[in-house]
This record gives sequence, structure tokens and C-alpha cells, in this order.
Amino acid sequence: MTEIVGVVGGGQLGRMLAIAGLPLDLRFRFLDPDPAAPAGAVGELVVGAYEDPDRLAALAQGAAAVTWEFENVPAASAERLRALGPVYPPPPALAVAQDRLQEKRLFERLHIPCAAYRAVDAPEAVGPAARAVGLPARLKTRRLGYDGRGQVVLERGTDAEGAAALAALGGVPCLVEASVPFERELSVIGVRGGAGRVAVYPLVENHHAGGILQLSLAPAPRLSAALQASGAALCVRILEALDYRGVLAVECFQVAGRLLASEIAPRVHNSGHWTIEGAETSQFENHLRAGLGWPLGSTAARGVSAMVNCLGTLPDADAVLAVPGAHLHRYGKAPRAQRKVGHVTVAAEDAGGLRARLAQLATVLPLPALGRDPAAAGA
Amino acid sequence: MTEIVGVVGGGQLGRMLAIAGLPLDLRFRFLDPDPAAPAGAVGELVVGAYEDPDRLAALAQGAAAVTWEFENVPAASAERLRALGPVYPPPPALAVAQDRLQEKRLFERLHIPCAAYRAVDAPEAVGPAARAVGLPARLKTRRLGYDGRGQVVLERGTDAEGAAALAALGGVPCLVEASVPFERELSVIGVRGGAGRVAVYPLVENHHAGGILQLSLAPAPRLSAALQASGAALCVRILEALDYRGVLAVECFQVAGRLLASEIAPRVHNSGHWTIEGAETSQFENHLRAGLGWPLGSTAARGVSAMVNCLGTLPDADAVLAVPGAHLHRYGKAPRAQRKVGHVTVAAEDAGGLRARLAQLATVLPLPALGRDPAAAGA
Repeated sequence: MTEIVGVVGGGQLGRMLAIAGLPLDLRFRFLDPDPAAPAGAVGELVVGAYEDPDRLAALAQGAAAVTWEFENVPAASAERLRALGPVYPPPPALAVAQDRLQEKRLFERLHIPCAAYRAVDAPEAVGPAARAVGLPARLKTRRLGYDGRGQVVLERGTDAEGAAALAALGGVPCLVEASVPFERELSVIGVRGGAGRVAVYPLVENHHAGGILQLSLAPAPRLSAALQASGAALCVRILEALDYRGVLAVECFQVAGRLLASEIAPRVHNSGHWTIEGAETSQFENHLRAGLGWPLGSTAARGVSAMVNCLGTLPDADAVLAVPGAHLHRYGKAPRAQRKVGHVTVAAEDAGGLRARLAQLATVLPLPALGRDPAAAGA
Repeated sequence: MTEIVGVVGGGQLGRMLAIAGLPLDLRFRFLDPDPAAPAGAVGELVVGAYEDPDRLAALAQGAAAVTWEFENVPAASAERLRALGPVYPPPPALAVAQDRLQEKRLFERLHIPCAAYRAVDAPEAVGPAARAVGLPARLKTRRLGYDGRGQVVLERGTDAEGAAALAALGGVPCLVEASVPFERELSVIGVRGGAGRVAVYPLVENHHAGGILQLSLAPAPRLSAALQASGAALCVRILEALDYRGVLAVECFQVAGRLLASEIAPRVHNSGHWTIEGAETSQFENHLRAGLGWPLGSTAARGVSAMVNCLGTLPDADAVLAVPGAHLHRYGKAPRAQRKVGHVTVAAEDAGGLRARLAQLATVLPLPALGRDPAAAGA
């Protein structure tokens, strides 16, 4: 039998979900306001607003399950879909991920360390909050921030700076968050399926620039068993607290060898793209298995991998594919500055092999400057 | 840019080609007389006869390359497509693969050992030919045999038996071929790309029943470096002799530790399905890379794999996916006796792990009886 999976959003994440599901003879239907949405090439595209009841009904029609590829699905749409059939991840997880304050409170409730913060919604509250959490601090909108948008750095902590920063963000409810002197950024990707089965991928080391993910290394270099266990534990605590179904990413900072949770993404995640070639089962396939109640696949890594985002424009396919172990993913999106239009995963057997291959890839594709040898793994 | 690839035939091989090409943002168009062809779920389906000039033109329209997923493409259609744009593998390779006599002569010309044979087309010629090559022998139609069809075993070698056998096959031109007391069946899958670049996958051990492939083990257990080198050499000789482009499979017998070539398939091949999860680059991706003139990907194995065909009906997805390392492929075909409707690849790190996983899979899916421990690899 051919199950239909509905996906709210037709971007590259939806597209990669479909590509993972096609071998299993799943069929995909996407809802997206953009008639040129990249997922349209791999499934049926319902073009319309995410709030449109008719379009939502068309998406859910006959679907074995409906899922989302981004967390900012309107709450009313999620509830409407839930009334029409099985949906996952659960709408309350969306609500938490949509609001940095709820997210922080979830971390606190689960005793998961996170950066100090204060909720603020008045101009005069920002300066004092910044001074309370420590400078420099960061003012962030509670809602609709992504890829580094919706943030302002507070350097001085004065009342004037605070009021101006809040005005710059539109005066919406915000958090002031302590800047964390982190050693590195890591993410934990876990999945929870039927009967509460859980599995967690090896932690990934992420490199951002301008708030946008540039490169992931998986498993994270110098990943101790204790750090992996700690990441897996906090991820599972969140999965269970939310009675979750599907893939969840938790972005973390490593500070003094420990993990501070930063935010959650209740969906497949950019820092998990390496799993397509680099893990026994990709995050995309596991998200589908979870939603259909099928057993989860192994989350073990196969060798080591680096994933590099292609931002703005695509590299030359011929040059990328000449790099041993390179796998090119092109999303079918029009070029635009800083837009994620594809990615390259380089797989290798070990850190030494990966280092050599990345050096070759760097002649083809701009790689971010890495603080230290990116492939000094395992040591 | 999004390149379009045209494929003559819309079966599971075309479908898997497309699934391999979608991450690269290739788009696919298939020509198939069956409006329910499985590849229709993953690309545009042009429904029509393989001989129809209009449908052939529709297939080739704007395509960067046109390829075939089966070798019995009518020669006139292949030539017509060649006049419309780039096609691969080259039509002369189809002509060889379509005729067992041409195939044998190619092997002989390239000094590749193969079973003794005689071409026959008259009833009175069959008996003497069978006695000449040695009994039992096998009468095979020169054209249009596949999955064990178009063959009759000659046990006694009498003139009467021979005449009756030829009549049973419709009196068409045939070969009488010596039965080979083989130790096992192996296949060699190679690929040739632009600038004559070649790569060959590890040899695969195949198990057939009733002429239909049941199970492949990759790399073949007990695969010596000498045997691999010998298989690779004969494959490369054929690739070069045919000025080939794309993936080619050579089916062989192992006899007294040496390889006898049996037949060629100028296309992606059932015994190469394991490469999707079990090799650095799948046969499907490499066939596309070759056709587009891109560098070939590594053909190295990742661990060990077993591929099991699902014949007639599909197993329960839930049960298959509960087997560690199992990857399920469902082709979207209606069930029918002995029809290839899907396959399962079980991947493992080593022979011991594969053995355990196959034992678990055997409780879900009928596995063929194997003469000896299938996973006694490497030893």
C-alpha cells in the first residue's frame, strides 16, 4: 500500500523528507504559498496560505500522517489539521518552539541548563535586564526568529541602548539573554517513535556565520562518551516531556565541557543533513518511520562526515563531485544572497581522510574559517 | 540548473534512477506503455509504445541525456533517439546484449572465457549441437530471454529432444550452451564515464531460483583480490570495447576458481541494488554521473550487504524495519506471482553482524536456501 504523507511547507526539508520516503513507496503532498516551492518537484504541491481551511483540508485528505517542516506553523492551522487526522510532532511542541520564553521554561522545568535570561516587553525593562544577566547580552524576539534574525546585541546595557534595541525589533515581546562564552556549538538530534521508542544521533559540531549554519561536523570532533550521554539525556527528557513523535533538534552551547541548551527545533534540522550519507538511517527516514509508527532505524554514524551549506549560489557540480566522498544536494531553488540552495556532504572513513577531502572541497566551495582543525576528531 | 534525464522504460530500475537523481536536482521523464508504470510516481510519464516516433520525441525533448532501463529497446527506437540528442549506453551495446550470439562473439573477441556453445536455427541442428558441447546442455533463444525465460534444458541430446525443444521455444534462432558445473554465480558491475574514466564495484555473489535473482551478497564472500581483479579486468575490457557510457553488469560463473562470462546487461542491474546503502556511491547515481559527464563516485563497499528480492508480494514494513540494518524498497507495483515488487537490503559492519541480521530477516521474508553459510565472508 502507498501511504500519503502531508507536509506543511514545501522547502528543502520537505523535499528531503520526500526523497527519503520514495524508496518506501510513500507519496507526498505539500502545502506552500509558493508555486515554485522546491518540494513540488518530488510530490504534489497544494498552493495556498497556511491558514486556509480548504487548503489544509486538501493537504490532509487521505493522508496517513501530516507533519511540518518548519516550526512557525500557525497554532490554529495545527489544531485544525489535528482535527482532520494524525499529525506530528505534537502541536504543543510547536507552541514551545515558537516562543523563546516557553522554551526556556521547559528547559528549567526539566533541569536542563541554559543561559540566564529575563523576559521583557517594555523599553524601560531592557537595560536593567541586560545588566542583570551580564554584558554583553542579546535581545531576542520571543517569536519568529530564525537564522540569526530578530536579535540585537546589547553591549553597554544602558537604558537608552535597551529601549532602542527593543524599538529596532518592533517593540514585540522579547527576552534578554546572557551571552555565553561557549567553546563550540553542538546540536543533538533525536527521534521518538511509536511505543515511546527513542534514538539519538551522535552530537554534531556546528559552525555559524551571521546566524546561518555554514558547516557541521559529525560526529562532533573530540566527542567524549560523557558528552554524548549528556546530550542524549537532555534530548530524551525533552522528547518525553512533550510526548513527542518524530525528529527533534536541540541546539546547544558547550561551556566548560558541559552543555547549555539554546533552542529546540521540532522538525528535521539542517545540522542533521549529514545523516543522509553519514548515518545508518537518515533523520528524514526516521522522521517518517516515527510518524507512521514503524520501528526506528539505527542512528549510528558510518565513518565521519562534514556537511557544508551552499549559500546564495550552487557550486559547479562537476568540481564538487570530483572530490572523493562528496555528495551534492541541490534544492532546485533560485539563487539569492545567503539563501540555502543546496549542501554538500563529504564522507570519509576517519578524521584524517575527512581532513584531506575537505581541503580539496575548499578549492571549490567557500568553507568557513574554523577555529581549529575541523577534522581533529576522536582525539 | 535542472537537467532532464529521459529513460526508456518506467519500471523499478527507472524509478530507482530517479530517486538517486532527485537530490542532484535532476528531473526525470519516462516512456512506458503502462500508465501504471512504477516510475510515474517519481517523474513525468510519457505513456506510449517504445516504437512510437512522437512519444520518443516527447521523451527526448529538452533532455540532457536519454538512457534505458532494459536492454530490449527496439534498435530503430534507439537510433531514432540518438538522432535527437545524447543517448547512453551506446546503441551497439544494446544490440550485443539483445543477441546471445553477438554476446558470445564479443566475449571470444576479447578473450573472455565463456561456456561452449553452438548457434542453431534448424530442428535437426539442436541434438548434434547438444552432444558437441556436452550434456546436459541448455537451449536458449538468441533474443528476448530474461529471468530464466526462453530456455529449455536438454538432458539426453537426442535429435528428437532437440527438435521438440526448439519447437517449444517457437523455432526462433537459438544457442545451445554447455551447462557449467559452477561453484557459484557472481556479477561484476562497472561504470564508464566521460574521458574514459572507469570504476568497478566489488563482485557480488548471486543466488537464483527458477532463473530469478533471489539474493545477492556484496562484496561476495571469500572474494580474493585475484578474483576481484579478474572480474574488474573483464568488465573494463567490455566497457572499452563497446566505447561504453554508463553502468554495465556482467553475469559470470565461478568455475574452478575462475570466471566464465555468461551475459551482459547494458544498464543498472538487480544485483547492484545493494549499492544504494552498501557502497559509497550507488550504481544509479553513477549511471547518472556517467551520462551527464560528471566525475564518477567511489564504488567502494561500506561494510557488507545482502539484498533480498521481494517476489510476488511485499513483506510487512513494520516487521522488515525492525531488523537492524534493514532498508526496505517498495516499487509501487501491484502484486503478481514472481513479480519483483520490492527489495530489502540488510547492511552490517562485518560478516558476523550480517549473519545475525539475515537470521532475523528470515523470520519475516522467505530467504533462499543457501548452499553454505551466506555470510561466511572474507574468510
